[in-house]
Amino acid sequence: MFEFEVQHQDGRARVGRFTTPHGTVTTPMFMPVGTQGTVKGISPQELLEIGSQMILGNTYHLMLRPGEALVAAHGGLPGFTAYPGPFLTDSGGFQVMSLGHLRKITEEGVVFKSHLDGSMVELTPERSIEVQQALGADVIMAFDECPPFPAEREYITQSLERTVRWLERCLTFKSREDQALFAIVQGGIHTDLRQRSLDLTLPFNTLGFAIGGLAVGESKAEMYPAVDFTTARLPLDKPRYLMGVGHPEDLVAGIALGVDMFDCVYPTRTGRFGYALTDDGRLNLNSSAPRRDMRPIDEECDCYACRHYTRAYLAHLVRAEELLAPRMLSLHNLRYLHRLVERIRMAITEGTFESWARAWGRRYFGGELPEWFAASLDASRSETGAIQVEVPLTQ
Amino acid sequence: MFEFEVQHQDGRARVGRFTTPHGTVTTPMFMPVGTQGTVKGISPQELLEIGSQMILGNTYHLMLRPGEALVAAHGGLPGFTAYPGPFLTDSGGFQVMSLGHLRKITEEGVVFKSHLDGSMVELTPERSIEVQQALGADVIMAFDECPPFPAEREYITQSLERTVRWLERCLTFKSREDQALFAIVQGGIHTDLRQRSLDLTLPFNTLGFAIGGLAVGESKAEMYPAVDFTTARLPLDKPRYLMGVGHPEDLVAGIALGVDMFDCVYPTRTGRFGYALTDDGRLNLNSSAPRRDMRPIDEECDCYACRHYTRAYLAHLVRAEELLAPRMLSLHNLRYLHRLVERIRMAITEGTFESWARAWGRRYFGGELPEWFAASLDASRSETGAIQVEVPLTQ
Repeated sequence: MFEFEVQHQDGRARVGRFTTPHGTVTTPMFMPVGTQGTVKGISPQELLEIGSQMILGNTYHLMLRPGEALVAAHGGLPGFTAYPGPFLTDSGGFQVMSLGHLRKITEEGVVFKSHLDGSMVELTPERSIEVQQALGADVIMAFDECPPFPAEREYITQSLERTVRWLERCLTFKSREDQALFAIVQGGIHTDLRQRSLDLTLPFNTLGFAIGGLAVGESKAEMYPAVDFTTARLPLDKPRYLMGVGHPEDLVAGIALGVDMFDCVYPTRTGRFGYALTDDGRLNLNSSAPRRDMRPIDEECDCYACRHYTRAYLAHLVRAEELLAPRMLSLHNLRYLHRLVERIRMAITEGTFESWARAWGRRYFGGELPEWFAASLDASRSETGAIQVEVPLTQ
Repeated sequence: MFEFEVQHQDGRARVGRFTTPHGTVTTPMFMPVGTQGTVKGISPQELLEIGSQMILGNTYHLMLRPGEALVAAHGGLPGFTAYPGPFLTDSGGFQVMSLGHLRKITEEGVVFKSHLDGSMVELTPERSIEVQQALGADVIMAFDECPPFPAEREYITQSLERTVRWLERCLTFKSREDQALFAIVQGGIHTDLRQRSLDLTLPFNTLGFAIGGLAVGESKAEMYPAVDFTTARLPLDKPRYLMGVGHPEDLVAGIALGVDMFDCVYPTRTGRFGYALTDDGRLNLNSSAPRRDMRPIDEECDCYACRHYTRAYLAHLVRAEELLAPRMLSLHNLRYLHRLVERIRMAITEGTFESWARAWGRRYFGGELPEWFAASLDASRSETGAIQVEVPLTQ
């Protein structure tokens, strides 16, 4: 029912095929985020047209509203949202922490205050899996704790060990066989704690592994060594998912280090704020420069906005606060990330990934590559993880 | 370049073909409103898919932002907005009055305060035509004054006479031959003043006539006799446009009285507020009833929302304030009005319009037909206008 096959490798960057009950996807891939059962402003038909392959749904939001029972009554997320392809749901743990409504973490689980009606709600490993089974995604995530950044070493250690005990409870509770559960490796930016998490997590031999606890406030110079260290120690024959990450430069660096799956609200959120992603960086349509610019956002892009509209028109929509603005900029930004990953897959297949990535980076960053980015490309050549820098302790 | 041909008639209801430089449209038709160069939330591709034929643009909004020069630089509204079909622009007069920023009306024109930056702007018949020529719509409107409701008879009389003098200035100034200018008949709800406006306006023999000054606060029982009176006295071989009107029941009653063209922000505005139009009346997706309703909005509708989504899902989007909600409800509501008019055209062609309209009305109003609606259907059988009721004077 699930199968993952690496088809091409170039350094540690790889192209793979991941088969799920709702379809086979090609990795690396970027997953648009459909927090509340919709990728904000975008129709399922458009998602298919721009090359989306797997959509992320949020357990925390959906369990509170409309409730997982209603989604299940529609046959799960594909029936509810009308997106016919594969979904991935997170465990709800990250939102509970990040939305700041957390009230208590115990060995049993977490208690939080609903951001909708203020009621107290409990989320445990078992409850998370129960909800995720009702939502019916093809890939579901283990219920974990993602500590804030910065956090004490001692706390991160306790937390990652509890996350492993929760993983075991998730696997024990899980009953549906048409859903693949991914374990989540924690440990913050500390290589020794990442090693500890790997040592405890890998034996469960789940169908895929996620890298959690990153992109939560640390710098990229702190984050990428942790990605490098972790992916170098994950099994080669399983998909790797870098959670919540997805700026253009992150996709290039992450793929260099062997990441297969990404998700992020960034393309849709920055689109709603009037920004368009391009190979030359982010174009600000709120500024005065594009108001008389008769070019499309991106000459090479094949999205609806780039095929039909000038920057001047889109800047007008942004200024006039028209609904079509967030829609078109979200669509373009998602297409930009999908097309970026398509170009990367092509380069990997042709064995030219590193030179492609350096050229892309020089254009995107407007000259010299940031150290963390260049180091990630360098590390792509080392099977065991080249970035063995001393990671400064937070504490 | 322009041609209008009545192809079928059933009572005073008629089906026609209206040829314009950007395409031939079939009347009666409903025109979606694209105030600021976009039908709120809907793409041009979707407009074509749901059967939109002509789009309305607002001179007042577009001259202030982004300015007509930028639209002209794109080759007019079709190039700017990427909607390839015909457009109609209003004259700007109504918005100046209705948005309440009017400062002064003189024989020369109006001076108003921009709602965007507070600057004082002048709009005259000549300036309105200049802007409309730059916007490049196929159908443009004479610059008129639409008095508020209620207004003194004396004021309405002076105003309609000035509107005729402005019409003459518009026609004198107009230089583009690929744009059809429609005159606007005023006179409020007073049959004698409507007659006065007709007497002064018809001699200009413009390519089409609009019925202005209605749907501005009067009741439908006051409005429809004025429509009846006016359409009965307009030439049979020119299109008639009832400005700013477009609730479902208005399309049926207006077409019964021989109206060919309608526009209204209602379908998109009520969609943004969470309402869906149906043959059974307006469905409120903000209420609790649809939250577990697994039916589509309308079993017979072929719009994207009805083909893919349950009421429960759409009600969830409305509650969650998701961008897809206004988009899908606007799309459905526009498709509902287009499909309503398509069904009416079919009934006219088959000579069954009146019985169709009565059956539709009984379902829509949930039983008995309102008097004004039944009277409009009755009047459809009288070539000279059956509603010769005494219209109560406002004063």
